[in-house]
Amino acid sequence: MIDLRSDTVTRPTQAMRRAMAEAEVGDDVFGEDPTVRELEEETAALLGAQAALYVPSGHMANQLGLYVSTRSGDEVWAHEHHHLIGDEQGASAVLSRVQPRCFSEGVVPSDAQLESWFAGARQGNVHRAEPSLLWLENTFTGRVVPLAEQRRVTGFAHRNGMRTHLDGARLWNAAAALDVAPARVAEGFDTVSVCFSKGLGAPVGSALAGDADTVLRARRGRKLLGAGMRQAGIIAAGALHALRHHRERIVADHERAELLAARIDELPGLSAAAATNMVLVDTPAGRAAEYVDAFADHGVAALGDGSRIRLVLHLDITDGDVAEAAQRISKAAAQL
Amino acid sequence: MIDLRSDTVTRPTQAMRRAMAEAEVGDDVFGEDPTVRELEEETAALLGAQAALYVPSGHMANQLGLYVSTRSGDEVWAHEHHHLIGDEQGASAVLSRVQPRCFSEGVVPSDAQLESWFAGARQGNVHRAEPSLLWLENTFTGRVVPLAEQRRVTGFAHRNGMRTHLDGARLWNAAAALDVAPARVAEGFDTVSVCFSKGLGAPVGSALAGDADTVLRARRGRKLLGAGMRQAGIIAAGALHALRHHRERIVADHERAELLAARIDELPGLSAAAATNMVLVDTPAGRAAEYVDAFADHGVAALGDGSRIRLVLHLDITDGDVAEAAQRISKAAAQL
Amino acid sequence: MIDLRSDTVTRPTQAMRRAMAEAEVGDDVFGEDPTVRELEEETAALLGAQAALYVPSGHMANQLGLYVSTRSGDEVWAHEHHHLIGDEQGASAVLSRVQPRCFSEGVVPSDAQLESWFAGARQGNVHRAEPSLLWLENTFTGRVVPLAEQRRVTGFAHRNGMRTHLDGARLWNAAAALDVAPARVAEGFDTVSVCFSKGLGAPVGSALAGDADTVLRARRGRKLLGAGMRQAGIIAAGALHALRHHRERIVADHERAELLAARIDELPGLSAAAATNMVLVDTPAGRAAEYVDAFADHGVAALGDGSRIRLVLHLDITDGDVAEAAQRISKAAAQL
Amino acid sequence: MIDLRSDTVTRPTQAMRRAMAEAEVGDDVFGEDPTVRELEEETAALLGAQAALYVPSGHMANQLGLYVSTRSGDEVWAHEHHHLIGDEQGASAVLSRVQPRCFSEGVVPSDAQLESWFAGARQGNVHRAEPSLLWLENTFTGRVVPLAEQRRVTGFAHRNGMRTHLDGARLWNAAAALDVAPARVAEGFDTVSVCFSKGLGAPVGSALAGDADTVLRARRGRKLLGAGMRQAGIIAAGALHALRHHRERIVADHERAELLAARIDELPGLSAAAATNMVLVDTPAGRAAEYVDAFADHGVAALGDGSRIRLVLHLDITDGDVAEAAQRISKAAAQL
Repeated sequence: MIDLRSDTVTRPTQAMRRAMAEAEVGDDVFGEDPTVRELEEETAALLGAQAALYVPSGHMANQLGLYVSTRSGDEVWAHEHHHLIGDEQGASAVLSRVQPRCFSEGVVPSDAQLESWFAGARQGNVHRAEPSLLWLENTFTGRVVPLAEQRRVTGFAHRNGMRTHLDGARLWNAAAALDVAPARVAEGFDTVSVCFSKGLGAPVGSALAGDADTVLRARRGRKLLGAGMRQAGIIAAGALHALRHHRERIVADHERAELLAARIDELPGLSAAAATNMVLVDTPAGRAAEYVDAFADHGVAALGDGSRIRLVLHLDITDGDVAEAAQRISKAAAQL
Repeated sequence: MIDLRSDTVTRPTQAMRRAMAEAEVGDDVFGEDPTVRELEEETAALLGAQAALYVPSGHMANQLGLYVSTRSGDEVWAHEHHHLIGDEQGASAVLSRVQPRCFSEGVVPSDAQLESWFAGARQGNVHRAEPSLLWLENTFTGRVVPLAEQRRVTGFAHRNGMRTHLDGARLWNAAAALDVAPARVAEGFDTVSVCFSKGLGAPVGSALAGDADTVLRARRGRKLLGAGMRQAGIIAAGALHALRHHRERIVADHERAELLAARIDELPGLSAAAATNMVLVDTPAGRAAEYVDAFADHGVAALGDGSRIRLVLHLDITDGDVAEAAQRISKAAAQL
Repeated sequence: MIDLRSDTVTRPTQAMRRAMAEAEVGDDVFGEDPTVRELEEETAALLGAQAALYVPSGHMANQLGLYVSTRSGDEVWAHEHHHLIGDEQGASAVLSRVQPRCFSEGVVPSDAQLESWFAGARQGNVHRAEPSLLWLENTFTGRVVPLAEQRRVTGFAHRNGMRTHLDGARLWNAAAALDVAPARVAEGFDTVSVCFSKGLGAPVGSALAGDADTVLRARRGRKLLGAGMRQAGIIAAGALHALRHHRERIVADHERAELLAARIDELPGLSAAAATNMVLVDTPAGRAAEYVDAFADHGVAALGDGSRIRLVLHLDITDGDVAEAAQRISKAAAQL
Repeated sequence: MIDLRSDTVTRPTQAMRRAMAEAEVGDDVFGEDPTVRELEEETAALLGAQAALYVPSGHMANQLGLYVSTRSGDEVWAHEHHHLIGDEQGASAVLSRVQPRCFSEGVVPSDAQLESWFAGARQGNVHRAEPSLLWLENTFTGRVVPLAEQRRVTGFAHRNGMRTHLDGARLWNAAAALDVAPARVAEGFDTVSVCFSKGLGAPVGSALAGDADTVLRARRGRKLLGAGMRQAGIIAAGALHALRHHRERIVADHERAELLAARIDELPGLSAAAATNMVLVDTPAGRAAEYVDAFADHGVAALGDGSRIRLVLHLDITDGDVAEAAQRISKAAAQL
């Protein structure tokens, strides 16, 4: 099976396994694991932040970003398809008790949208929740959010007393696509989450970066959630290896996505386009599930619903796999 | 000043004041206030429900409706302009820790919308919040939701294991406009909130109606919120008087709204339409605030933002007030 | 039935009913009810506070005091028998998400207790909740907390960055017993709750007092809970009447409690002592419920469990009632 | 430095590192990691439970145990020194919104205590939180809770509609001390948490065990907290190795604790007793911190406050280390 469901399915390389087996560790709840510290420091440096915190998942990095920048009853502004809104259960209501207000067009809210939301919520209006956090995601379903657009909306937020968070689970992909340093993508955000799994291929973990005080509060929050891990250096070593050795290779995923998209786009009934490491495929109306099943029958695993299928390139997929996947998809599509 | 900001601004009539002054009372926290009981029983009967609970506001009736039908982390489906979403601060996140998923077109969600939301959230998908409650409002910004439409969506909800709530703050207006008994409007809902203030003109209070078990849980919830009131019979007497004597008169508000809308619609630059007891006025783009100020200068209080002004007819507004208001608005509009 | 279960069972006097019937009112959610404002201002002045907020119950006044002085995950220090801990359901966990740490001896914690709790919770210890609020109650099950003791512990709290709240549901009784102005009892607290029901005999309501910013946040919190009431002036008029006319009479309750306690203490098997307006009666081991039933059979309503019965004097109990109650209790006790 | 602060400080053995390096892994968020599954199944079997869930820490295993057995506003009964109450920040208030009610004597509540708590909280009393969960810890600060005592109180809980949880972070120690199978210690509990770190010496992780439905809900809860980990098999392999190979050796920790306690108990000014793998040392009044510093100066790390020091034996401490530690402590004590 060629597994293109997600870039989270990668298995650790031999070198990464070696790094984990030999990791120097300590009790990280006492702050004594040297490998975790090294990972946190290198991540912070790469993002131009004062500090970073290693956590078990991107979901937790996001939820801690929300937790440290809001109070119960506040409002967070996000896109209705952001991971925060649709893929983290009801965690933002449960853990931080914040209410979302969602835009549904584009990758950032328009000025008009921002102005109108803000006008309705001025302090003193006891009917309205207080907006305290603006949320972006880059890349967002594979699409790169232009840095100028990020600046426009984070600028608005800061001028109006709101904080900003970037869900950077695939920030490495954005940086690679834009050919800029990761810190450039992180500019303008009070907190940024990044993932060592996904594009980088580590087995476990994400990080939340920000200023020292914010990260200290997130550290308390991580403990509150029960995610203080003891000798976490074992898995942090895998993340550190990935951070050092796998950022470069991300462009290869993007190139392969282009290739695969081109091949699928030629198939009758399907249209496909690459977006960084993803191939977004449109099927005839409402038939995505049917195509996903057919792909699986031919040995290609994908995810999809409605009329949209998503194929994700990652560390474990070679040029050969791409060629093979294209052929199998072609056969599968021919039968429908 | 002719106050058309809201139907909540009414002052108690002399008869109502007399009823309150003479009310028989007891300690309602011990369940011993006869007037409160009478109000709760009559309200339940009118709505075809087993029981009802008297609470200080429509906001609380709604929040308790949410509280008794959800668990932390669940999802509630509502319109983005429902009172629940935009006018109750972040209460649903704080009190019940539920996450909204919002439709933005029409007065009820379409079948396609319902199907698509439900498909994404099937149990076992750990990424998604569990949808447990479908929320409607009738009237909704003055518009009557057709009963057949209510049935369609509450039917969908019940077939799929979800519960249903009706924000009936202006259910009396819907019943009057449809010329049906209130219980007809309440059909298909597990819980219904109604308001004794607003159209009925009582000084304080709303109720939540439902089956006996649900209302018992809401009673516990009311105490948890700190809204167990001691000799609440005083204000309940005002609500009871309003329920008995002011439902009939609601049609007069609707007729006056028609009249006022017709007069405003003739004015240059403005278009107006009545929706039950509301007059919705569209101004030239973005100038609502300006018009609201001009109206106020001429002695008519209204609320508005963007390009939309809302005028609300109520108990304290006579035919004479409507004529006078129309004239004042005409003068105000002429100066802009 | 002579009802000595609680001082919450009082019925409004004729003068109070008249005050309510004639109250000037407005829409308090818009901040336009003059009677509510007057009540809030007079209450604040009496307590030496900048502002006060009218709410439906003492429970809500307390919960808002908790809400404005804590963040989710904080710790509140209180006595295990404080109303906050045992009589407000799990509201402090639900509404404010704070964790109690309880002392169980005396009416205030000892210095040793305070030091030991504080030592364990210094910032930076991620295992411990952050203590942010010290809670007292005066009177506390009828007992007056000495002002010097209050000062000692509120001083400790403030020196260590904690805030302080006084549950003053019966602060009027404490002031009467100490023969000082209410503001003296309120000294040293960031927030104070007082009750217009109970000793003062109004039908509905309590207030939370504090500095202007704190009360503003409590006002938002009250709306969040759904306790913004429209023409609340009706019941506020009852509270205002009680505040102006019933504070003086509280000493009479205390004298009657002394009298009743002396009579009961003479009875075989029972020992009784007065504490402000309460008579605390000790029965033979575990037989309180039995005695309560016997009292009820003879026409005296009381509350009790274990080996302790509580009788509460209040506005509706005259000297004659006390004499009669003593006789009935004597008869009841004789039969056991 | 001989580190006796906690049994959480152990470093993985070479065999354990090898097991992790060679672990077969998959994406555990998709439920596809074979090593995690194996660990969960073996743990469940050992505890006589239907299912188990691997989580990053004992804190999270406990908090999920709380989450699946309570509703917002419920009450949990626990000892004031249980880890749940004093060492997990305010997590039970934040995550599950439950309120603790604490006993402070012994290792289980007395029958009288249970009866009295339950009497006060019967359903229908709107003033009281609903007790829904009884919490025990075994071992509890090193002390073994007798199985008959467990049965007595879990029996009470189940007869009265409450659920039960065992914090079994050191259940392996209890089983070793009692010389019974782990499943025997877990009897009578709806959920049980166990730890692979601490006595077993794995680098990361704990588990929550229970019936299949409960564990399924905990699995959703784990995702909600953001602790769904991708290729978690890496660290699960360490836990699995520990579970298979390190349970037997726990008795050695207990014997070493006896030895060390005997040596310290001979020292002037100190008294010491072993409790499973812990040595509890009493210092002259209030001088624990001073002794801890002195021990550290002589190369023995310990934790303590007030008049009590705790020394914990674990995987990394040999017989030689015990002898050496006893000597160093003797020297340190001689200087004070």
